[in-house]
Amino acid sequence: MSKYTVGIDYGTLSGRAVLVEIQTGKELASSVYEYPHAVMDQALPDGTPLGHDWALQDPQDYIDVLAETVPAVLKKSGVSPDDVIGIGTDFTACTVLPVKSDGTPLSFLPAYKNRPHAYVKLWKHHAAQDQANRLNDIAAARHEPWLQNYGGKISSEWAIPKIMQIVEEDPEIYDAMDRFIEAADWIIWQLCGKETRNSCTAGYKEIWNKRSGYPSSDFFKALHPKLEHVVEEKLSKNILPLGNRAGTLTSAAAKLTGLREGTAVAVGNVDAHVCVPAVGIDGPSKMLAIMGTSTCHIMMGKEEHQVPGMCGVVEDGVMPGYFGYEAGQSCVGDHFAWFIDNCLPASYRAEAQRQNKNIHQYLREKAERLRPGQSGLLALDWWNGNRSVLVDVDLSGMMVGMTLQTKPEEIYRALIEATAYGTRMIIENYREHGVPVEEFFASGGISQKDPMTMQIYADVIQMPVKIAGSLQGPALGSAIFASVAAGKEAGGYDSVFDAARAMGKIKDTIYDPIPENSKRYNALFREYRILHDYFGRGKNDVMKRLKSIKENH
Amino acid sequence: MSKYTVGIDYGTLSGRAVLVEIQTGKELASSVYEYPHAVMDQALPDGTPLGHDWALQDPQDYIDVLAETVPAVLKKSGVSPDDVIGIGTDFTACTVLPVKSDGTPLSFLPAYKNRPHAYVKLWKHHAAQDQANRLNDIAAARHEPWLQNYGGKISSEWAIPKIMQIVEEDPEIYDAMDRFIEAADWIIWQLCGKETRNSCTAGYKEIWNKRSGYPSSDFFKALHPKLEHVVEEKLSKNILPLGNRAGTLTSAAAKLTGLREGTAVAVGNVDAHVCVPAVGIDGPSKMLAIMGTSTCHIMMGKEEHQVPGMCGVVEDGVMPGYFGYEAGQSCVGDHFAWFIDNCLPASYRAEAQRQNKNIHQYLREKAERLRPGQSGLLALDWWNGNRSVLVDVDLSGMMVGMTLQTKPEEIYRALIEATAYGTRMIIENYREHGVPVEEFFASGGISQKDPMTMQIYADVIQMPVKIAGSLQGPALGSAIFASVAAGKEAGGYDSVFDAARAMGKIKDTIYDPIPENSKRYNALFREYRILHDYFGRGKNDVMKRLKSIKENH
Repeated sequence: MSKYTVGIDYGTLSGRAVLVEIQTGKELASSVYEYPHAVMDQALPDGTPLGHDWALQDPQDYIDVLAETVPAVLKKSGVSPDDVIGIGTDFTACTVLPVKSDGTPLSFLPAYKNRPHAYVKLWKHHAAQDQANRLNDIAAARHEPWLQNYGGKISSEWAIPKIMQIVEEDPEIYDAMDRFIEAADWIIWQLCGKETRNSCTAGYKEIWNKRSGYPSSDFFKALHPKLEHVVEEKLSKNILPLGNRAGTLTSAAAKLTGLREGTAVAVGNVDAHVCVPAVGIDGPSKMLAIMGTSTCHIMMGKEEHQVPGMCGVVEDGVMPGYFGYEAGQSCVGDHFAWFIDNCLPASYRAEAQRQNKNIHQYLREKAERLRPGQSGLLALDWWNGNRSVLVDVDLSGMMVGMTLQTKPEEIYRALIEATAYGTRMIIENYREHGVPVEEFFASGGISQKDPMTMQIYADVIQMPVKIAGSLQGPALGSAIFASVAAGKEAGGYDSVFDAARAMGKIKDTIYDPIPENSKRYNALFREYRILHDYFGRGKNDVMKRLKSIKENH
Repeated sequence: MSKYTVGIDYGTLSGRAVLVEIQTGKELASSVYEYPHAVMDQALPDGTPLGHDWALQDPQDYIDVLAETVPAVLKKSGVSPDDVIGIGTDFTACTVLPVKSDGTPLSFLPAYKNRPHAYVKLWKHHAAQDQANRLNDIAAARHEPWLQNYGGKISSEWAIPKIMQIVEEDPEIYDAMDRFIEAADWIIWQLCGKETRNSCTAGYKEIWNKRSGYPSSDFFKALHPKLEHVVEEKLSKNILPLGNRAGTLTSAAAKLTGLREGTAVAVGNVDAHVCVPAVGIDGPSKMLAIMGTSTCHIMMGKEEHQVPGMCGVVEDGVMPGYFGYEAGQSCVGDHFAWFIDNCLPASYRAEAQRQNKNIHQYLREKAERLRPGQSGLLALDWWNGNRSVLVDVDLSGMMVGMTLQTKPEEIYRALIEATAYGTRMIIENYREHGVPVEEFFASGGISQKDPMTMQIYADVIQMPVKIAGSLQGPALGSAIFASVAAGKEAGGYDSVFDAARAMGKIKDTIYDPIPENSKRYNALFREYRILHDYFGRGKNDVMKRLKSIKENH
């Protein structure tokens, strides 16, 4: 008899539940609920204004996702709650909130309703940049050994800069909070009634390491005297590996969702990382690229290597027993969107309209007729800086090879190729530092909608590109982790590897490298690499000097 | 009592006459006649098809210009032919034709009417590229000393490759012609009834040098056995400096034009070079940039220096007694046109239309609000290769500094700035090789219509930019040379320097460098120069390798 799990993906603007058959990974029903408060970046609901670069959320929206979507998928699928053996979730990260010791968000308390720092700080809250800069300076000056596990830099999006901002700007909130917790873990607390912390966000966002723990209290004290014991006072040393069971549904949560009390609940997880088993990845050296406005590359390795330019390496950070490696490209879909908005001539829009095609389709049809190297163009994909492998936000875009015959579709294709070269740099960088990369998977919007780009990637990286079989990769991934939380005895799986093999999916279409194209792209990539190192590794810091001139204009 | 001269400018598609008052340079009347045969690049009038890259003209059109425009300016101005003391002309170059010993073009003879090689080869006839390549290889292998006077390369547009094409492809025409002559000199022959040759085209286009003459007969023999005595058989060693009188109007020419028989006729001249006195330049170290689709830089120097990357240095090549230096940028207005056609988004066109502005005006208004360096962009202006100072058609465009915030007007302005940096490279290159540059003048369409660009040039080159006062610079220049051919006794001038001072004109508006902008452009030009040398002088030949990949796609 079939068993099922529910996976819930908490995105930036909505939450989505899917109900999945455990034996096959088949998705029987899905349901989306858009957060009523969406992203608060101008003011709180009562009108209290927010500063520049703020981005907050209301945690009530997360609860409402449970109440709306889980009953909906049960109803749509007709599956009995008795056959749903687990629930799992994934979240954007680092999305964090201050709560009381019973889990109540400070923003729920009338005393703090008008205090911005009482709310959830969304991943893209960028107002802690000053704090991040100071943190990095202090860490570098102290030669903190963990800094190299994050490619040499802690992002302003992560938890420690965010809590620094609270202690500096609203110490009363800092004092009032008993815990400072990832929303990924907070939602699990709501489901099973107890606080847990997962190894993924702890490792990637809270500077925790399975072997060496957190940075020292001396380091935290150097950031701010009140932070000296922040780990003991606000965070937690009790970190569970992914794939574990956090607990079981409380009666209150069962009532909220329509599931049975006692249903297994997986530990919290992160939207990108949870996609890995959703494409069937069950072991090391298989890279998943989640391609959207930017790209996140996740892979497991058997050993811990300090690879320059990663976003992080975290033991148990993706699946238990392996080191999870994360890298990133800051500008992928954003790159193509910039081109469409700023460079596409009126004549092309008019012609697309005449042919009843959307402009992307029209442009792609022109671009895919070009052969590798035919345009004579080559670009560096740094319109939004470079995350991996250079970790340098001050780099900028570059293009070479333009002539009076250069056409828009050639520029467009060159931008796409540039992101593929960027991915190849990441892959070669891993290999050069002892981390093998043997297979390549792609998920996210671009992987589903853009065969030309996927073929270019296959030709450039010279590996087959396998495409995620589900349009709801994160929710499916959460359902996979839920089946492991339930365990084999209950009809699920004892390991996420078994679950991934059974429930993960890729499409039938695999993009195989075309040898002739790969040969031509090899020659082009050689040129990319020379320019990458020339502009990116200090031979000519013109991009930084131009930026500095720009800022002082 | 006032005296007058007529100047006629033979352009690519039409001829234009102006009637000018000698004492003041005032233009009393002008008249344009469009060539009925325009440019023949597909077929002869009888349907005989032409090859790829051909461009021919019918010399009858040049005669018709005389018959139409000179009577017209006499009539419009009301000036009596008795008071017109001279006539001067300028032509595109190298525009050449084969003629009989009496000056009759071969194309006028029924036997050759259907023979493409019997016609005028226009300057932009590019079908002799193979011949030019061979000529350059042979000259380089023989270490011909004159090659360095042309920046190391003879263009396929010039006379020797063109006559090579005739002797190779239609030897009968080669044998039938008694003279091979620049249209600039042929039109003078029509006016005064005798063959003359001018030092400007001889020097810049026929590889003639006042001191050392033409290349040796050995060299010509190496090009083709029949060319061994080409100088004696088809060209001429009798070269007159500019500013001389070629002769006086024949009765036939007087009848054709309505001028008096015996009116002084100036030696032939070239459209670009004749502009120099038209802006009042009367001596060395004053550079004139003629800015259109491309830019031509003409200047005189007191000494002969071999400056790398020039188009040529020719004694008496601009005004008698000085060495004429010519340099060029292959892509100026073409550059901006490429941007408008290929990169300007539909939203900008729509907004320009809404505001009832032409797109150039709309874009310029946005671009001129930007301060130097504000965009963070820097480009190399090599969309059409680089003429001076690198003499390399295989170079291509480059831009650096793009971000997701980069706007179209920023790219547009960066392209304009790039051409200004290119001009500064030419100026600094002269100075570094012992040729001083002390003043800067601009003529041509861009100088008249685009104050923003002119201000950028002034700021970048750190010299005031003076703008041509006449919209018909070449025709005015020809009228100036006509007044010298007439001489002081007849009411004209005895030297072109005196004539230039009296008749040449600049506008009242002079673009002075703004010190603050110059300082910022100094910093940007430093970056331009580093990239110029990196991409252009062999440190990274990526542009050539990309072109080679492109050609083999």
